[in-house]
Amino acid sequence: MRYSTTLAEFVVGHEYEALPQDVVHEAKRSILNWIGVAVGAATHSTVDIALSVVKQVGGAPTASILGRAEKTDILHASFVNGTSSHVFDFDDTHLDTIIHPSGPVAAPLFALAERDGLTGRQVLHAFVLGVDAECRIGNAVYPAHYDIGWHITATAGVFGAALASAKALGLNAVQANHAIGLAASQSSGLREMFGTMTKPFHVGNAGKNGLFGALLAQKGFTSSPEGLEGRRAFANVLSAERDLSRVTVDLGTVFELSKNTYKPYACGIVIHPSIDGCIQLRDRLSGAVESVVAIELRVHPLVLELTGKRTPRAGLEGKFSVYHSAAVALIDGEAGEAQYSDARVNDPEVVALRDKVVATADATVREDEAHVTVRTADGTRHHLHVEHALGSLERPMSDGDLERKFHSLARPIIGTERTEEIIELVWRLDELESLEPVIAAACPSRAATA
Amino acid sequence: MRYSTTLAEFVVGHEYEALPQDVVHEAKRSILNWIGVAVGAATHSTVDIALSVVKQVGGAPTASILGRAEKTDILHASFVNGTSSHVFDFDDTHLDTIIHPSGPVAAPLFALAERDGLTGRQVLHAFVLGVDAECRIGNAVYPAHYDIGWHITATAGVFGAALASAKALGLNAVQANHAIGLAASQSSGLREMFGTMTKPFHVGNAGKNGLFGALLAQKGFTSSPEGLEGRRAFANVLSAERDLSRVTVDLGTVFELSKNTYKPYACGIVIHPSIDGCIQLRDRLSGAVESVVAIELRVHPLVLELTGKRTPRAGLEGKFSVYHSAAVALIDGEAGEAQYSDARVNDPEVVALRDKVVATADATVREDEAHVTVRTADGTRHHLHVEHALGSLERPMSDGDLERKFHSLARPIIGTERTEEIIELVWRLDELESLEPVIAAACPSRAATA
Repeated sequence: MRYSTTLAEFVVGHEYEALPQDVVHEAKRSILNWIGVAVGAATHSTVDIALSVVKQVGGAPTASILGRAEKTDILHASFVNGTSSHVFDFDDTHLDTIIHPSGPVAAPLFALAERDGLTGRQVLHAFVLGVDAECRIGNAVYPAHYDIGWHITATAGVFGAALASAKALGLNAVQANHAIGLAASQSSGLREMFGTMTKPFHVGNAGKNGLFGALLAQKGFTSSPEGLEGRRAFANVLSAERDLSRVTVDLGTVFELSKNTYKPYACGIVIHPSIDGCIQLRDRLSGAVESVVAIELRVHPLVLELTGKRTPRAGLEGKFSVYHSAAVALIDGEAGEAQYSDARVNDPEVVALRDKVVATADATVREDEAHVTVRTADGTRHHLHVEHALGSLERPMSDGDLERKFHSLARPIIGTERTEEIIELVWRLDELESLEPVIAAACPSRAATA
Repeated sequence: MRYSTTLAEFVVGHEYEALPQDVVHEAKRSILNWIGVAVGAATHSTVDIALSVVKQVGGAPTASILGRAEKTDILHASFVNGTSSHVFDFDDTHLDTIIHPSGPVAAPLFALAERDGLTGRQVLHAFVLGVDAECRIGNAVYPAHYDIGWHITATAGVFGAALASAKALGLNAVQANHAIGLAASQSSGLREMFGTMTKPFHVGNAGKNGLFGALLAQKGFTSSPEGLEGRRAFANVLSAERDLSRVTVDLGTVFELSKNTYKPYACGIVIHPSIDGCIQLRDRLSGAVESVVAIELRVHPLVLELTGKRTPRAGLEGKFSVYHSAAVALIDGEAGEAQYSDARVNDPEVVALRDKVVATADATVREDEAHVTVRTADGTRHHLHVEHALGSLERPMSDGDLERKFHSLARPIIGTERTEEIIELVWRLDELESLEPVIAAACPSRAATA
């Protein structure tokens, strides 16, 4: 079976009208959430540093940096916006693979949309197909690929970026097939870098590199037509186990985007059930957090593997600490960006409560489940079983929840008026002749649309 | 042992005066050879396509494309020059790892030298250290890493590019350590792409990405300090076996560049002993090639694994065919770029003789060794044992051989005068205040130096 060729032909030949309406709506939800996380981190030092390098090497200013005034070439705009959107680790999640699907796909599409004047429908269409491709490729190699140490959002994301770009650029099937090969040869990103700026870098880089491959393929650059399945290609080299049939099963009838989820909390998804439990238990304590002597968490083993940092020192590290997250959620009743500032992570009250958190791995607990017990000085034991965390497929965030999250991220950067304008525009993205009004509203020093 | 930190500290702290003179001379030989292969392929379609994309996205023209008139930003100049230098598969080889060491390292250095006005000594110094780093990292994971399907020139080359750039940019040890982490997260390139334009792409990409990581690290971007040795870092994730002590053993006393070799023939190194044998046997036949009924090759198993294409159709594929290579060498007495044109690969006389080649793998034959037997219609059997192919460490190309090779590559693109000027300049590179005269001579439509 020539999986790469089949996938390329599918993406190139697919028509917008064949998209189910609920998938189109999910694409709008994903894109709204993505703009929010990208704009929200636009003034973070990770983005400042990236832009200081882009100033040295960037090309013709054809694409905007969301949340900022700068423009640059489409590759570097993809890079910066993709990076920005993962800085807070607050983006969306395809739970079957732990891929954050929007970043690598939306970033190059927004750049191409701005340069080439794509319609809202073209963007939505390429977005759905790019996310579908990256998640299907992720399905084929997860979990063995992830377990050994690959950052799957980047390694699979580069394929999503390549195929979304191929669709947006109007490549033919042969060119799209070569773009897959070029993506395979750029597939990279290691979990060792989690907790540093290189983690969000992976996401921006995947988007940039997938687009780069598509641009080369468009001009006739050649690659292997078997970038996924060849003997020395992606699936065999980057994973000890694989099921390539997952790339093409139910192609065109099941869209992986339908399984997308959104985070209510600004940290790794595996901590969410614990946070959810702590926020709910906080009400029972009526604010008497100083009386807590122990927080006991029984969680899926991945929680400790991914977020087992006992003593985080920076805000970014706090996102990889179930201990900090549980403590700050119990104190603040929230787990937004404010709870992952350097100051909050080092706050003596938070640190003191953090040291009272005990987390136990239990292989019988699902990833979106947690058992949370809080003990107080008087011997009382408050227990909560979180069956499905808020933001899971079973308890999804509503459109209203997503709007509120968008507000919390975008308003501090671009103000209320622009924030509301973007929300209104994204819900009718399929009617827009161009993304220009969305992008203009997201870039504070540029004139808002009339 | 913190290998990444040790390597970063070594590169940052090393002084030019501590370089042995023979290593400096080998660096000049490598750089001369590298300019030759880059200039020689400057008008190849692979480079044309790459430049058509660079025209869309390239930044401020601070660095030149060798052999051409165009300038672009330092990242894209690294990309195009590195790609160009591997198009002919005629570049240098570190035999212990099959890494082609110069491409990923020299390309970003030439770009930085032009932009920042580096001296010849600064370039030579960073070049030696970059090549040392990439080959040491290659030593640590070869052959398991290569065997599974990684294109080691790219996967290790990105580290060489990062550390050479770190040295040239004057990074401190912490920044250089982060640059290693950023390189690890961009390490990519699959052997599946061999025989397509994506193979040379890997080399250009490694140079560009290593430089990108160094530029980010210079501005304060963070990564893991254990990019090589961490649990989920390069050596553990990209190789089933590893010996990280090879990264730092004899650091500063043994320079891997001393083991560099140069190809007399324009194809994969593993075919060279067979070509060498055919060229030598041609003399015994006194040109009576039409009487040949069989060419029998007994070779190292890697020859068939890497270059076993029975029926190549394009010139590029011919380089991965020991059958074509042996046939054309016996007919032409040469194996330069001319022998790997599309026309030559499809020439009926060559095709007919190619079909008479029988190659047998023999694990007792070394990689630089071959047994070649030619049988003619009258029953005569001509046998030759090539103990070490020309261009091997035991039978190295002389400085004069390298000058002749440089002439054959550069003269068709930039003419005799500029070709001779570059040779003269490179032999005294350690005296040059700037690389400007070298680069000017290598770029045909720019004014030659006085």
